[in-house]
Amino acid sequence: MALDQVCIIGAGTIGSLCAVHLAREAQVSILVRREEHARALNDHGLKVSGKSNFTSPVYAVTDPAALPDFSLGIVATKATQLEEAVAPLKGRFGEAVFMTIQNGIGAEELVARFGDWPLISSVTFMSGIRHGDHHIEYELDTATWLGPYQGTSIETVKSVGDLFVASGLKAEVLPDVRPAQWSKLIFNHAVNSVAAVTDLPHVALYARKERPSDLGWLVAGLIDEGKATAAAAGVELFEDPWEMNVKAVTTGETDSDEYAHVPSMLGDIRAGRQTEVEFITGALVREADRRRVDVPLSRAMYQLVRARDRSYDD
Amino acid sequence: MALDQVCIIGAGTIGSLCAVHLAREAQVSILVRREEHARALNDHGLKVSGKSNFTSPVYAVTDPAALPDFSLGIVATKATQLEEAVAPLKGRFGEAVFMTIQNGIGAEELVARFGDWPLISSVTFMSGIRHGDHHIEYELDTATWLGPYQGTSIETVKSVGDLFVASGLKAEVLPDVRPAQWSKLIFNHAVNSVAAVTDLPHVALYARKERPSDLGWLVAGLIDEGKATAAAAGVELFEDPWEMNVKAVTTGETDSDEYAHVPSMLGDIRAGRQTEVEFITGALVREADRRRVDVPLSRAMYQLVRARDRSYDD
Repeated sequence: MALDQVCIIGAGTIGSLCAVHLAREAQVSILVRREEHARALNDHGLKVSGKSNFTSPVYAVTDPAALPDFSLGIVATKATQLEEAVAPLKGRFGEAVFMTIQNGIGAEELVARFGDWPLISSVTFMSGIRHGDHHIEYELDTATWLGPYQGTSIETVKSVGDLFVASGLKAEVLPDVRPAQWSKLIFNHAVNSVAAVTDLPHVALYARKERPSDLGWLVAGLIDEGKATAAAAGVELFEDPWEMNVKAVTTGETDSDEYAHVPSMLGDIRAGRQTEVEFITGALVREADRRRVDVPLSRAMYQLVRARDRSYDD
Repeated sequence: MALDQVCIIGAGTIGSLCAVHLAREAQVSILVRREEHARALNDHGLKVSGKSNFTSPVYAVTDPAALPDFSLGIVATKATQLEEAVAPLKGRFGEAVFMTIQNGIGAEELVARFGDWPLISSVTFMSGIRHGDHHIEYELDTATWLGPYQGTSIETVKSVGDLFVASGLKAEVLPDVRPAQWSKLIFNHAVNSVAAVTDLPHVALYARKERPSDLGWLVAGLIDEGKATAAAAGVELFEDPWEMNVKAVTTGETDSDEYAHVPSMLGDIRAGRQTEVEFITGALVREADRRRVDVPLSRAMYQLVRARDRSYDD
């Protein structure tokens, strides 16, 4: 398939990284919410620094009706904004493939409610830092994993994977991304929910199990509940979430509040935004309930984060 | 016994309420930490408004060596400051009775480490609002319950109870305050730990069990673990902590963040202070461990609050 026109829906960190790279190989349109965001992108192009260094021309709009046709749509909003962003695309772009790249699980199902587009499921391990509306820093140049969702052909997925690689991103195509998606889900569930309520970045304490008050006990308990849920759902994990946790806090200056990574749910709390807890901890608890797996700690974290981000009545 | 000289150690809300009232019936000295606090009390006396309205002369010092002799010492610091406040009294005031009035459990044992004074154990349900160093508002004029600790005679306790009542406070003398102390402990454990990490005052959500994200489920789970621990410790509760929770949120404007009660641990977090979690949730978890009671939710809250108030390395 020809992937010469790509639309990026949402230009946060991941959306911007996709857009700036893919624009080297295709015409890229971007759907954003704020007028000044669109204006900055149209006036200056989108610049990437860090692991990549160049500027790409892009075409940004705030009105979904103004989007030009495209053959690949990458939904890169936060999970919490996905529905609002995709709803206006209903019944349009019938020839396009859509790809989700959200944290957690459930994004594919949400997109599928608005059209019968072939879907690609993905999970990304790259990261970046937004330095403004038209400047993104490419921080961790780790891979994005792509796989078919509900019958999309593997050839379609491969052509998107090839486009990613040609544009300078790292990508791997897998017949099933769920093992990687669930590994990241369980890792994010444990680390993000704890961070959201303790206001503590991802420091070494998250992996420490020495004193009774150490957070490592709780993080391990949450991960064990997640693993039991994955097993009951028939998903074999790609990577052990506890090892991911240990690895993340034993590289860099992770003992210091100041330099440690701020998990995205904590970033949301600090910015007064609703977190993605429904797509991470909430989704995991619902899956556990469906499979009759006992997850008391995860349920507690779900309730605490919903109270913390004041979304309990939504 | 003659209780004509009373020393109040710590003049926060509860210490100030005791001091201003008892000063009507006895000479009251107060040990505080800050010089300007002592100066304000010595210059202006201590004023109470609300349920009581008068001003009492008091004698305040910051140097424990400058304290005049007394026959009743009321340790009214936060549990976290008790040790530092009582240590300098070691080996002195051999004729005095000491009374603890802290939240949680364990204050009596801590005081006993510094002298073999007869001890009175108490739990208070009164509340107030500090409007400054020498003005306290008497908010809830509910009773303080007093009982003997480790062999102190009931007559001694009664004379202190009589002094409280004569001075305008409400007091009840019981042969054993543990049922009331544990009811309050379990209530505080559940409500305070949840408040400390969610930043949410004690609103109706704490007693709601409708949606899966409602906090009532977690609060009830924490209370159940507390009740199992009390039962294993041979303590029959005076009041059901869940009923205390329901009652507290169904009076007044408890649906609003703005008007609902801010539990003291949340107040500590907001002020950047260490919480009393070691004396409340921490003490309960240790008691459960001793009695081999399984308390996974309480343990999680203990670890979360220790991380939240940054005391995990103390």
